Amino acid sequence: MSSAAACIFCKIIKGEIPSFKLFESDKVFAFLDIGPLSRGHALVIPKFHGEKLTDIPDDHLLEILPVAKNIAKASGAVDFNILQNNGTIAHQVVNHVHFHMIPKPNEQEGLIIGWPQQSADMDKLKALHEEIKAKM
Amino acid sequence: MSSAAACIFCKIIKGEIPSFKLFESDKVFAFLDIGPLSRGHALVIPKFHGEKLTDIPDDHLLEILPVAKNIAKASGAVDFNILQNNGTIAHQVVNHVHFHMIPKPNEQEGLIIGWPQQSADMDKLKALHEEIKAKM
Repeated sequence: MSSAAACIFCKIIKGEIPSFKLFESDKVFAFLDIGPLSRGHALVIPKFHGEKLTDIPDDHLLEILPVAKNIAKASGAVDFNILQNNGTIAHQVVNHVHFHMIPKPNEQEGLIIGWPQQSADMDKLKALHEEIKAKM
Repeated sequence: MSSAAACIFCKIIKGEIPSFKLFESDKVFAFLDIGPLSRGHALVIPKFHGEKLTDIPDDHLLEILPVAKNIAKASGAVDFNILQNNGTIAHQVVNHVHFHMIPKPNEQEGLIIGWPQQSADMDKLKALHEEIKAKM
């Protein structure tokens, strides 16, 4: 669901659903994930409702990383991942943009990453580079 | 290595190593990953040299997500992941903070995510919440 009215994170922002709130400002809200991958797993979200990163206005994104950084520091995490998923196939479950700060204390806990790297084809990369640059 | 002098990304920023540059401003640099997980895989980095997110001053972080968003749009990616790894155990390879924008066109290509979710212990979460909040 992508409507704000039915969105569980919009309800958390409004206080209609309780949360372990860590930070709140005009534009950003942060809280502990209650289905953590590791101790300290937290979420930082824009209050602006949007399903994907590409739906969020720039001024609602500025504060996200400084807040994630502060939570990482406060959690005491030494190693950690910042992750934001867009689309079901990309492992997005709640359709309101959210950034995970996931401590990685050991191999078993925290985010597990698979990295199916492709061989670099410089000619294809060059063509792609021109294509993307032309659209920016 | 965490010294700026030996850092491959610092050399890319300075133009000492060529790259498929997509964007550059006073504080941010973006380019195609030459070992992509999928077509359009790009990196957005602060010019400020730091190994982990917690090493980067806030004002060097503000522009990162708007730039990643613009590259996602320009790449035509519908589904994608934003990922930033801190520490070798968290899959960091180059010790200069970098944000991946990785299109997820299908199950095989792009980022592979494992999600070892833990059972929610509300009492432990409550104690952790107090602990982290006290440090912020």
